[in-house]
Amino acid sequence: MSDVYAARRSRLLERCLGNGSEAALVTGAANVRYLAGHAPADAALLVGPVHDVLLCASDPFDTASAGRPAGDLRVFVLPGTEGDPAVAGAERAAAAGAGSLAVEEHHLTVRRHRAVGAVAPGLRLDDLGPAVEQQRLVKDEEEISCLRIAAEIADQALGELLESILVGRTERHLALELERRLVDHGASGPAFPTSVGTGPDSGLAGHVPSDRRVEEGDFLSVCLGADYRGYHSEIARTFVIGTSPADWQIELYEQVFAAQRAGREALLPGTPYRDVDRAARRVLEAAGHGDRLGPRIGHGVGLENGEDPRLAPTAMGKLDACVPVTVDPGVHLPGRGGVRIDDTLVVRPEADGGPELLTITTKELLAL
Amino acid sequence: MSDVYAARRSRLLERCLGNGSEAALVTGAANVRYLAGHAPADAALLVGPVHDVLLCASDPFDTASAGRPAGDLRVFVLPGTEGDPAVAGAERAAAAGAGSLAVEEHHLTVRRHRAVGAVAPGLRLDDLGPAVEQQRLVKDEEEISCLRIAAEIADQALGELLESILVGRTERHLALELERRLVDHGASGPAFPTSVGTGPDSGLAGHVPSDRRVEEGDFLSVCLGADYRGYHSEIARTFVIGTSPADWQIELYEQVFAAQRAGREALLPGTPYRDVDRAARRVLEAAGHGDRLGPRIGHGVGLENGEDPRLAPTAMGKLDACVPVTVDPGVHLPGRGGVRIDDTLVVRPEADGGPELLTITTKELLAL
Repeated sequence: MSDVYAARRSRLLERCLGNGSEAALVTGAANVRYLAGHAPADAALLVGPVHDVLLCASDPFDTASAGRPAGDLRVFVLPGTEGDPAVAGAERAAAAGAGSLAVEEHHLTVRRHRAVGAVAPGLRLDDLGPAVEQQRLVKDEEEISCLRIAAEIADQALGELLESILVGRTERHLALELERRLVDHGASGPAFPTSVGTGPDSGLAGHVPSDRRVEEGDFLSVCLGADYRGYHSEIARTFVIGTSPADWQIELYEQVFAAQRAGREALLPGTPYRDVDRAARRVLEAAGHGDRLGPRIGHGVGLENGEDPRLAPTAMGKLDACVPVTVDPGVHLPGRGGVRIDDTLVVRPEADGGPELLTITTKELLAL
Repeated sequence: MSDVYAARRSRLLERCLGNGSEAALVTGAANVRYLAGHAPADAALLVGPVHDVLLCASDPFDTASAGRPAGDLRVFVLPGTEGDPAVAGAERAAAAGAGSLAVEEHHLTVRRHRAVGAVAPGLRLDDLGPAVEQQRLVKDEEEISCLRIAAEIADQALGELLESILVGRTERHLALELERRLVDHGASGPAFPTSVGTGPDSGLAGHVPSDRRVEEGDFLSVCLGADYRGYHSEIARTFVIGTSPADWQIELYEQVFAAQRAGREALLPGTPYRDVDRAARRVLEAAGHGDRLGPRIGHGVGLENGEDPRLAPTAMGKLDACVPVTVDPGVHLPGRGGVRIDDTLVVRPEADGGPELLTITTKELLAL
């Protein structure tokens, strides 16, 4: 495994050298994890000019369970109490003879950037930009298999919840139970705060679970994901509570389902991001819900939830094979509730069977 | 309540005007919450020059349960999909006639700062610095009562755990159960990821719970906190599993307990931060643990866990009354385990009875 990380760092350094920077200082947490295999809090990773060094504010490997980074990655734990690993990284880069250092201007605050610049006045600071994020876009099969397990865990947690009695329980308790089940099935934790919405709050993206209790006749929408070895799955489903759904519920569900299917079917290598959004969005626009849609119909997943690409009307770029994304349209009718359906899939060429669905919980409208 | 927020914003604007800036753009999430009463994801708050405006990427009040901000705070939801609320805030400030705008350089990334500067070229950007963080340091009684409830919730969750059987359960499950109990007792969630360490990993600050199971003879250390209305309590306790602690366990416990008590007793208005650290640290140094101590012996709590002040050897400043802090020394002996004891307290003058202990779970060494 350590070779994987070393290879990723070499690729980054090559890119830096091509752009005229002699070393890179990586501070985005997911980027550090991608390149080092570990992401201690507030760590900085210096890639080049000679040795790669992971700089940490305190020793992240000082526990019985944590493994140390392997291969040629050195670990440097800052002495004292006040140091900034990014500043220490710049100091090292200068000491190792680098004349220029590419930093992540979209992660470093203005204040830290100034401190990094001040510590080594002879060192020119360039902007690394989202170079690591771009490298993370296409996943290798090892990463995809982590995502596959993360999706399976979320499916299991959701499946078990559906077998229990739901009426009378609060959104908060359902969310907590789901999170406990994620861990039961091997997740290191939820990928993001589990959202459970009932009745008038069903179908809202990112709804924070409240003390509202599930009632007969409610829509119940659930959005959760598992973190497995740092990789984040995402799934949302909407159910009806009670014997039989109302007509408006069936109609709305079918509209969102049709939109979600259209989005999924558009997931092929070479498809522009915006066309995936369009495919799903136009179904809901035709149903009169155009002004109720969120800014995007899906997004990439990996070491972060909601990473690139954005499947949105103005997004630039085209899908590649082996890019995992969500397709997650939803419609919320104020005062009544709504529907959200969300899967994690991997873009695959048609010759390989097309998009690979990772979250396999049924999308039939279940009455629970 | 809305008057409280308006008064806080007026105070900030006064300070800005005194420093030559005509308006402030606040982007730190806890700072936005402190001044607006709400902190939607990625929101920015423009204070002055005419009206205060909360700028949001999507409508955060589009749910049945969320209240809208009251009083003179306006809410502006960005149209479209690509906007940055901070950029929109700078645009508004310029449109309202401001010639200068103080921004939080310690929260804004270099990239966002550039975008904010580019949108209104006639607008001079100043550094607001940690002005809002400083304003947040001394709490009002309403804030302290939220912290008191948050501490009570953590005490209750911990108390219930101690009544259950612990041997054979994993760190991860204990942590999850604690988090569920926090919510049961009214927390909106854990204040930070609950840490449970057993055996060789006991006593480690911020230990991520693993699948290790509790065994007879282990130290078990637990660190948790509740989030109640945004306010964060923190408590850590260490227990011994089984009939009777070993001699080294009793000795280590007594050392950490004595240090923690010394730290607590130093919490009086006017005491330099570093003297609180010193009071606790010297007890453990005398016991030969000097090189095993963390960088600080405690920290402020409020809308963030680990906010100012830092009770550390090089910290500058003195305690004020009504500043809530933790006192949380710990010692970890590699391969054997360790002890951590942590309370949340409020600094009070001696005339009012001295430091107010919010987390009241016993600090006797319990054998469970």
